[in-house]
Amino acid sequence: MAAETAEQPAAWQRLLDAAGPDGASGVDRAAGLARARSPRFVLFAARGTSDHAALYAKYLTEIRLGLPAGLVSPSTLTAYAARPDLRDVLLIAVSQSGGSPDLLECVEVARGQGALTVAVTNNAASALADAAHAHVDVLAGPERAVAATKSYTAQLLALHLLVSRILGAPDPGVDALPDLGEQSLARDDRVAALAARYRFAQRLLTTGRGYSYPTAREAALKLMETAYVSAQAFSGADLLHGPLALVDPLVPVLAVVSPGAGGDAMAPVLDSLAARHADVLRVGDAGDLALPAAPAEELAPLLEILPLQMLARHVAVARGGDPDAPRGLHKVTETR
Amino acid sequence: MAAETAEQPAAWQRLLDAAGPDGASGVDRAAGLARARSPRFVLFAARGTSDHAALYAKYLTEIRLGLPAGLVSPSTLTAYAARPDLRDVLLIAVSQSGGSPDLLECVEVARGQGALTVAVTNNAASALADAAHAHVDVLAGPERAVAATKSYTAQLLALHLLVSRILGAPDPGVDALPDLGEQSLARDDRVAALAARYRFAQRLLTTGRGYSYPTAREAALKLMETAYVSAQAFSGADLLHGPLALVDPLVPVLAVVSPGAGGDAMAPVLDSLAARHADVLRVGDAGDLALPAAPAEELAPLLEILPLQMLARHVAVARGGDPDAPRGLHKVTETR
Repeated sequence: MAAETAEQPAAWQRLLDAAGPDGASGVDRAAGLARARSPRFVLFAARGTSDHAALYAKYLTEIRLGLPAGLVSPSTLTAYAARPDLRDVLLIAVSQSGGSPDLLECVEVARGQGALTVAVTNNAASALADAAHAHVDVLAGPERAVAATKSYTAQLLALHLLVSRILGAPDPGVDALPDLGEQSLARDDRVAALAARYRFAQRLLTTGRGYSYPTAREAALKLMETAYVSAQAFSGADLLHGPLALVDPLVPVLAVVSPGAGGDAMAPVLDSLAARHADVLRVGDAGDLALPAAPAEELAPLLEILPLQMLARHVAVARGGDPDAPRGLHKVTETR
Repeated sequence: MAAETAEQPAAWQRLLDAAGPDGASGVDRAAGLARARSPRFVLFAARGTSDHAALYAKYLTEIRLGLPAGLVSPSTLTAYAARPDLRDVLLIAVSQSGGSPDLLECVEVARGQGALTVAVTNNAASALADAAHAHVDVLAGPERAVAATKSYTAQLLALHLLVSRILGAPDPGVDALPDLGEQSLARDDRVAALAARYRFAQRLLTTGRGYSYPTAREAALKLMETAYVSAQAFSGADLLHGPLALVDPLVPVLAVVSPGAGGDAMAPVLDSLAARHADVLRVGDAGDLALPAAPAEELAPLLEILPLQMLARHVAVARGGDPDAPRGLHKVTETR
């Protein structure tokens, strides 16, 4: 997990280099198909870490593409055999392995129901890549640790590139990402020191808004699956609609706050947390886990997750766990 | 909270009585507008408990209406000021109070962007009811406890009726619900006895699939906001994609399993939990919290949540809490 975390800037560079018109990523071809079809709605199908990348892309879709979007509940197409009318729909399935039977069935059904389908995977030889009209290869290289790290940020970048290409918008900011990633990763010692505070934490909350909400979700999953912390993620607004009652000085909070509209919208959430004397570690724009400024707010999630991946690993190792092989999990999860 | 929990069957009967063509619920008028417009895509906007009713309606939409659906991320329309193309979209906002500014803004923006808008609230005099093209009144009566109970199941029933009317399908099963609800509520002593096992639990998982997944989400929220348990909800499939690592004999699990496709799809999840020696309380089709059979799988969520509302209240009271006034919360949460 440590090695794969460190590889992320190199993986991003590889994807950027392969994102040209004939590049191995396939992002240009997928975008071309989508532009030709002019979809009216975008659906995402994903599980686990990939579902957080899909949520990020849902924000990109609503804000940048100006299209309504939804996350598919796969069981409606599998267990319930629903056959919705999916003409004018772009369905994007996101999966590291491309190997989960329920996502494959989602793509097959969606294609049969009239959707344009795109698979975003880390395995060009997967059944999912094969089943969709187009495949985007995130080119993260083989990922062996059960806890996904480099495949997650490669998915974020691939989805960002895909949306930009569908828009036909230039995207110069992305070229700065590998350097900014290296700067963020260089703080491993600082993160290791911070991890000591969470050595005995059994419960934890993560929160963020807008583009940073997927970061909060993914950070919670990393802490659950490697350090076995009961980590709960809430959008800042949803936190105020009930779960805030949970917060007391014994439940640490990780708040993802990056410059931009999402970070600005966290102000009342941070006020409410302070009023409840919460222990808040701020990640992003200030404090112990301040990060270099991203070229644009919507690119901050690639950087925000890095110290949180490191934090989960340090807490897991301090507890005697093996983040490469969490109990009860396998690298490819097959759900139906 | 106890009184409002007990009122649920009467509230359902009131809504059923008012669901006729000129009934006070307004469900027929809303359905008529939707039928006339023939939407291609359905969006839901909601927060907190109402978001779980919206998730239930998303399953109904995908399975029964055969339309793709999504849950709006309100910040895209508010904080990010996105203006997506919402022609052919039906947007349904669900809110007990009809008073949260961000949902009001969602409805106003969606209406301006071409969507047909329906508000489902418990307050016909609310700004949200006023802003939408049509209003469905769930007629639960004034709800005073901060932890929503009767407004939640009234929302479920109102959304079920709305979908049936849009389909033009008869719905004879609903008439049996009030009696079945009374039978389910009669087990309060049994639930109180079970609550003793959770007196000292700080963490807990809830899980379900399909129509029962919203029940798992709502049960977790009730336990969070009244008993301050760090309760995490996962769809059965998502649980296997990572969070399963959390499970050990010290993290109790509440599994919602009702007869039907969703319950059947829980079989591999229950197997995985058993393999990890999890402490599983089954709610629905068998075991200590078996419920009377619902007239149809998609109506089971109205019954499933009843013992879980009772469980949360008993655990909260045993801990010296006041479920009518949880710390840090107010009845109407205003997020932007």
